[in-house]
Amino acid sequence: MDISKAKSKKEIIADKTIEIILNKGLSKLTMDEVAKSCDYSKGTLYNYYSNKDNLIVSAFIRLINKFTYRIDDIEVDENQAIEKKAEFYSEIYSKIFTSLTKEEILRTFEIILGSVNNKKNFSSLKSTFTKYFTVVLDKFEDLFDSKNKALMIQSMLVGLQLYKVFGVDFDKETLTKELKDIILKLCE
Amino acid sequence: MDISKAKSKKEIIADKTIEIILNKGLSKLTMDEVAKSCDYSKGTLYNYYSNKDNLIVSAFIRLINKFTYRIDDIEVDENQAIEKKAEFYSEIYSKIFTSLTKEEILRTFEIILGSVNNKKNFSSLKSTFTKYFTVVLDKFEDLFDSKNKALMIQSMLVGLQLYKVFGVDFDKETLTKELKDIILKLCE
Repeated sequence: MDISKAKSKKEIIADKTIEIILNKGLSKLTMDEVAKSCDYSKGTLYNYYSNKDNLIVSAFIRLINKFTYRIDDIEVDENQAIEKKAEFYSEIYSKIFTSLTKEEILRTFEIILGSVNNKKNFSSLKSTFTKYFTVVLDKFEDLFDSKNKALMIQSMLVGLQLYKVFGVDFDKETLTKELKDIILKLCE
Repeated sequence: MDISKAKSKKEIIADKTIEIILNKGLSKLTMDEVAKSCDYSKGTLYNYYSNKDNLIVSAFIRLINKFTYRIDDIEVDENQAIEKKAEFYSEIYSKIFTSLTKEEILRTFEIILGSVNNKKNFSSLKSTFTKYFTVVLDKFEDLFDSKNKALMIQSMLVGLQLYKVFGVDFDKETLTKELKDIILKLCE
């Protein structure tokens, strides 16, 4: 079995898992259902994921990547003016915000909160979070020259996602404008 | 039956419900369990709450009151300087933030998110939220002279609660200081 093929199977399983979670809800997810929808045996699934919790965490990581991939990939030139940086972050964040559906956000929060009472899942998620936190936090900390403010702006972005689930939505242009304004004011 | 006594029974039931949710988790809550712990018959419970979902929403409203009671009660003099207002809000919020345990916050989020897929519960919760939103939002909107900024600061406060569940905590003094600073900068 070559490695690229093995990797691809693992990804197919995680993607099908996301599909099932998004369409039917987390509580309806079973290993049988995932195996059936991938057209793999259950044994094949267990080769890649030791249990359902592991599979859910992997699906969650793929969902959270939607939040991070853009931020992680693009570098801001150290010499760019604060104005340009504020624009950069507010545009990226608004893109991510508008690309996620209410349903995706809701499921993500369900997985996150559901993990708190499950030590093993929580530990996996915490390391995913740490990675995500670090990527965004480092950039914000650099911008504000304050770890606390960076954390608080990050928590604002999380809170906005939760508000979206409850129907408090922003269009892309408004969010970009307001975020840029807040970032600039905090940099003063 | 006099009205004050009836009201008190309803409150006792809601308080016992909170106790059970906080100690055993939402998934373990049954009408039997609540009746037993109140020493009431199940029939008595159903006199006050038509079903378990209704009871959960009422318990949630009592929990969320922890967030709002201080903000709702205290009026800020219109003539107070921005500095004083910023101090006022940051102190109140820090008090509320530190008074809620991780467990209480987690359960609150569980109830909120659990309600999204339950139309009846969601509608009850939405009216509770609207009340909460309006009280805080009106005050913030007045302060920032912008509804969008008021919403974004509110979402920051919600996000901070979620972060607390995951171990990103602030002590009262730091949070008060940082919040005051952010509010002041956004008022400039």
